[in-house]
Amino acid sequence: MGVPLWPLHQAAGIERIVVSTYQSASGAGAQAMAELESQSRAHAGASRSRRKFSASDRLQRFLPQYLHRANGYNEEENKVIEETRKIFHEPELPIVATCIRVPVLRAHSESIVIETRRALSPEEAREILSKAPGVKVVDSREKNHFPCRSKPAASTTSSSAASARTSRTRAAWRSSSAGDQLLKGAAWNAVQILEELVK
Amino acid sequence: MGVPLWPLHQAAGIERIVVSTYQSASGAGAQAMAELESQSRAHAGASRSRRKFSASDRLQRFLPQYLHRANGYNEEENKVIEETRKIFHEPELPIVATCIRVPVLRAHSESIVIETRRALSPEEAREILSKAPGVKVVDSREKNHFPCRSKPAASTTSSSAASARTSRTRAAWRSSSAGDQLLKGAAWNAVQILEELVK
Repeated sequence: MGVPLWPLHQAAGIERIVVSTYQSASGAGAQAMAELESQSRAHAGASRSRRKFSASDRLQRFLPQYLHRANGYNEEENKVIEETRKIFHEPELPIVATCIRVPVLRAHSESIVIETRRALSPEEAREILSKAPGVKVVDSREKNHFPCRSKPAASTTSSSAASARTSRTRAAWRSSSAGDQLLKGAAWNAVQILEELVK
Repeated sequence: MGVPLWPLHQAAGIERIVVSTYQSASGAGAQAMAELESQSRAHAGASRSRRKFSASDRLQRFLPQYLHRANGYNEEENKVIEETRKIFHEPELPIVATCIRVPVLRAHSESIVIETRRALSPEEAREILSKAPGVKVVDSREKNHFPCRSKPAASTTSSSAASARTSRTRAAWRSSSAGDQLLKGAAWNAVQILEELVK
């Protein structure tokens, strides 16, 4: 989220963020991916009449069940709020985060709505994002083409890999983003920090 | 969305809605459900090395690809905005909607953030919702229990079936809802309207 929002914050001053996530199984580790795959397999293998739509069937539900903390936000939501404020050096920035796990194997996605101090047209936002490092704008109404997921990490280990894609900037304060969290947020971050240090 | 929001609007006056949806395959019809099932089956059947993570693989992506209209919102988002304004008799109500299809077979879910004219405490919101017709509050931080999905329609054809569940009202303006769109929004609505007419 920080990758596309930082340049917009620099340009227009973000005053509020409302974000809802669509987080993949891989963020919870290899075990969660295996679990999603085995549940899909079990569901696919069962005859229609014998299928059980159990509460643990990941094909059947979305999962807001990260562990909750005292302030009413869950641990993942607190992380989104606290880490964004820290990275942006904005300790009081109002952020409403709702983190949901969806039955997708790889790559996180987010629905992001921002309010900015000064007005930002969709055209200007798109222009800023098109020049932002690590952002690939995928936003074609004509072709009905928007970010769906990022490529698996295996094929994109170069530092020019798109680490976040942002689209639907038409309201200047709404976007859908999809990014591979292995390329930004987890392992690849360490490589980028190392590269900066070597410079 | 209207089911839990209407009583809150009556009580405190909603001034803005930001909603992101997690819509199931069933909303797009039997064909979409069959497609999701066959893709899950194909994915489960393929050996790990032969798997293709194609762009059409629904286990691999979230789907913001409803057809887009001229105002930049897609057809589903326009419907959410226009129908809510109509039902609420608030033709100018600011609503930001982002509609996403997720690889879930049945029942839609939503992440909803509202701003109200007068302050509304989480306790008051929960109290209002607990008395609202068609709403079942599922909101236990102790048990980490929140709405995940509603039951398949087959087992809940009575009119007392929960048609919307709302939780995490702790900020008075954030909630996660899950509802079976067959019970509210589609077929069952017709039955309820008929019941009202018979009265």
